Amino acid sequence: MSESGNLKPFFEPGSIAVFGSFREGLGCYNTVKHLLHFKFSGRTYPINPSYKDVLGIKVYPDIKSVPESVDLAFILIPPHAVQEVVKECAEKGVKAFIIGSDGFAERDGQGVRLQQELVYFARQKGIRIIGPNTLGVVNTANGLITNPYVSGEIKRGGIAIITQSGLFGSHATDFSQRSISKICDLGNKSDIDETDVLEYLAEDKETKVIVMYLESVRDGKRFLDVSRRVAQNKPILVLKGGRTEEGARAVISHTGSLAGEDRIFDAAFKQAGIIQVEKFDQLLDFAKALLFLPLPRGNKIATITLTGGGGIMQTDTAAKYGLSLSKLSKHTIDELTQAYPWLPINPFDFGPIISSLRGELSLSSIYKEIIEMVLRDENVDALSVTMYAGELKGPEFDLNIFYELQKNSFKPITVCICGYDSPLKGEWTGILESFNIPVYLELEDAIEALGILFKYAEIRQKLKTE
Amino acid sequence: MSESGNLKPFFEPGSIAVFGSFREGLGCYNTVKHLLHFKFSGRTYPINPSYKDVLGIKVYPDIKSVPESVDLAFILIPPHAVQEVVKECAEKGVKAFIIGSDGFAERDGQGVRLQQELVYFARQKGIRIIGPNTLGVVNTANGLITNPYVSGEIKRGGIAIITQSGLFGSHATDFSQRSISKICDLGNKSDIDETDVLEYLAEDKETKVIVMYLESVRDGKRFLDVSRRVAQNKPILVLKGGRTEEGARAVISHTGSLAGEDRIFDAAFKQAGIIQVEKFDQLLDFAKALLFLPLPRGNKIATITLTGGGGIMQTDTAAKYGLSLSKLSKHTIDELTQAYPWLPINPFDFGPIISSLRGELSLSSIYKEIIEMVLRDENVDALSVTMYAGELKGPEFDLNIFYELQKNSFKPITVCICGYDSPLKGEWTGILESFNIPVYLELEDAIEALGILFKYAEIRQKLKTE
Repeated sequence: MSESGNLKPFFEPGSIAVFGSFREGLGCYNTVKHLLHFKFSGRTYPINPSYKDVLGIKVYPDIKSVPESVDLAFILIPPHAVQEVVKECAEKGVKAFIIGSDGFAERDGQGVRLQQELVYFARQKGIRIIGPNTLGVVNTANGLITNPYVSGEIKRGGIAIITQSGLFGSHATDFSQRSISKICDLGNKSDIDETDVLEYLAEDKETKVIVMYLESVRDGKRFLDVSRRVAQNKPILVLKGGRTEEGARAVISHTGSLAGEDRIFDAAFKQAGIIQVEKFDQLLDFAKALLFLPLPRGNKIATITLTGGGGIMQTDTAAKYGLSLSKLSKHTIDELTQAYPWLPINPFDFGPIISSLRGELSLSSIYKEIIEMVLRDENVDALSVTMYAGELKGPEFDLNIFYELQKNSFKPITVCICGYDSPLKGEWTGILESFNIPVYLELEDAIEALGILFKYAEIRQKLKTE
Repeated sequence: MSESGNLKPFFEPGSIAVFGSFREGLGCYNTVKHLLHFKFSGRTYPINPSYKDVLGIKVYPDIKSVPESVDLAFILIPPHAVQEVVKECAEKGVKAFIIGSDGFAERDGQGVRLQQELVYFARQKGIRIIGPNTLGVVNTANGLITNPYVSGEIKRGGIAIITQSGLFGSHATDFSQRSISKICDLGNKSDIDETDVLEYLAEDKETKVIVMYLESVRDGKRFLDVSRRVAQNKPILVLKGGRTEEGARAVISHTGSLAGEDRIFDAAFKQAGIIQVEKFDQLLDFAKALLFLPLPRGNKIATITLTGGGGIMQTDTAAKYGLSLSKLSKHTIDELTQAYPWLPINPFDFGPIISSLRGELSLSSIYKEIIEMVLRDENVDALSVTMYAGELKGPEFDLNIFYELQKNSFKPITVCICGYDSPLKGEWTGILESFNIPVYLELEDAIEALGILFKYAEIRQKLKTE
């Protein structure tokens, strides 16, 4: 059973009170700006006795003066003043608090005491806390964004993020092209922890894939039990910070929590169906493949590259992930060889085709023809396609072929775009990802994404039969 | 002793004959276009009886008609016609051949025979061959570029590339921002191999760092002997294609050569002072750090990040490369704490500083002040700095601080640029790299680059004392 209670007020509040400075450019000014910009569907009550209004919204001197009940309080004031504000809010009936302020357990002994008092009070009153030392939450479905450091846009989609760091603030991560449902920065995890949020996300209809940056796990057994249950329906990707001894020491001074033994985590995560990644960018790069694509029915892949060497590197990458290059059926090989006599087959090397293109031929129709032949082959479970974004002879590449291919196939397709860094790369990525084809800029990554899909297919199979 | 002879005619010919089609957009038309565009310092003689001129240059019907002696022939004609052209050139006294044509040992039995005949003839006549199945060479010092598939610019600099694949054609790699001295695509290695080119590059004054993509090594002992000698003065980075069993099988059909046993390569490469990398992009990403930066005197690094989590991930990465986070001296810590009381020290987390920036403060002057304090500390051997490319309060970031910092320090500095994908990232990268500060877009990479510098410092030490 869950001890988490319902986290709805944190992500779907009807009203939010915001405590902090409303000076232009500072923390809570930005929070209010974002709530307006992202069209938060609830009511916003900025609170500070020194202001009359901010960005056209009335500022209240204290929580008592707010004319209705408040579901969620976001607090970004000096740490010694937090306790008093929480008490006043509790009297008003507020049950959910996001404490953005730092200066608690992550800082010093005094901060540890402040945090303990806060938690003691919360337990007595039955209120729940995210933080302290957190950027709070994002919900793209209702425009709730407490993070003061967001800039630019956040694209709405099926990926939820649980983090224990400001790494998923936009000063560190670009969200404009990502498909995000929810973000939760746990901060010091004085009360609400990864498992509470995981349980909430398991039920959240918007969320299809869950990614986590974790430095510690508060209740290992409960976390693994819940993960095992969730992973049957929604893939969970985790990057564990503090995996090395030195990294673990650095964790202590970051959020005041203890990182655990590396190998124990590895084994337990694996058993619970959690997919661990090695690098930060892999979290969202792999998540989009899991979000966009069907799972492969087996581990046999085909790959189209622009060079023989690229095909070999991709074959090496495939082997690392338990994937294998498909042996195509005689029928497919005959069909391919008849149309393209010198085409090296799986890995396919399109280099010679591109270099012999004449003005009148359309490269995209060649891609389409070959890809269709390959996808029809029963020995092929998944496909990776490399493309060149740059000046070519012949008619412009018609990316719509991928819309058709993806619509008509139940096999996952990833794309790698190579070539000169040009605006074209970003443009093509946007178009292809709007067709639910995940795009990568490194040859190995397009294969690794297929590897993760295969891994999750296996995990799901295993968890469902256990 | 070298059996390679002198490869000068391949990279520094006074004249080149180009055999192939000069139809607009096709192979040798492009080669001639590039020779003109990159201002090749020698004379160019296009040869084809069906053309009178190409791009304003006279086309000769055959090699005999060329009015002077020719140093190098680049041949891109159907495979069965190659032998005859080579014979005619040999009669004219040409000693160096780049055979671009495919359809040799990499294709079928017939191709194997054609290649054997070619090599037999070459041995008899004392002529040397690069290829077949190659894009040939690039020399940025004299504008010699045989590769028909180059588009855009190639920046001149100190990195030389030896490859066994078109991977370093610009349909696969962006060279506009890279610092390239020479490129050599070995193709099928019927004659000239990796060791021959390595020996040439060892003596080449333009080349400071050597990177290789290899699928096989022709003469293991000689390659390792030469590498051990070269690596004392110039770092050698290698990506080995066909490391896995499946990858090795794919190699056979790519260049017709046999990939060797993975673990034997690993051990031998290590002993020879070769640095192996795991991913293709690491070749040039690590090479630029080795090109730009001084070697660290030890393994103690400092890192400036924008988030606590980023610092922890970087600490994990550092540990993997044998690096360790410096314990700063009491003096430095006092100095830093006095100026910035709440700054988390090494990993440094600048997040709080940035979020509390007021309009009047200059972030770049804060960076400069802290970086200077850190670099002065004797316990710090190297530094990684994370920056945010995006909208910030306060005066524009003055990147010139890095020019000063780099000029006045003998310690290596890498930069990671985070934030929204904006033209600013590319702009900043260009400026910082013009100051010899290598830039990375992922947090781990900026640390890995320092790890490679440390690794090479150790290799050099070891090789020189052996």
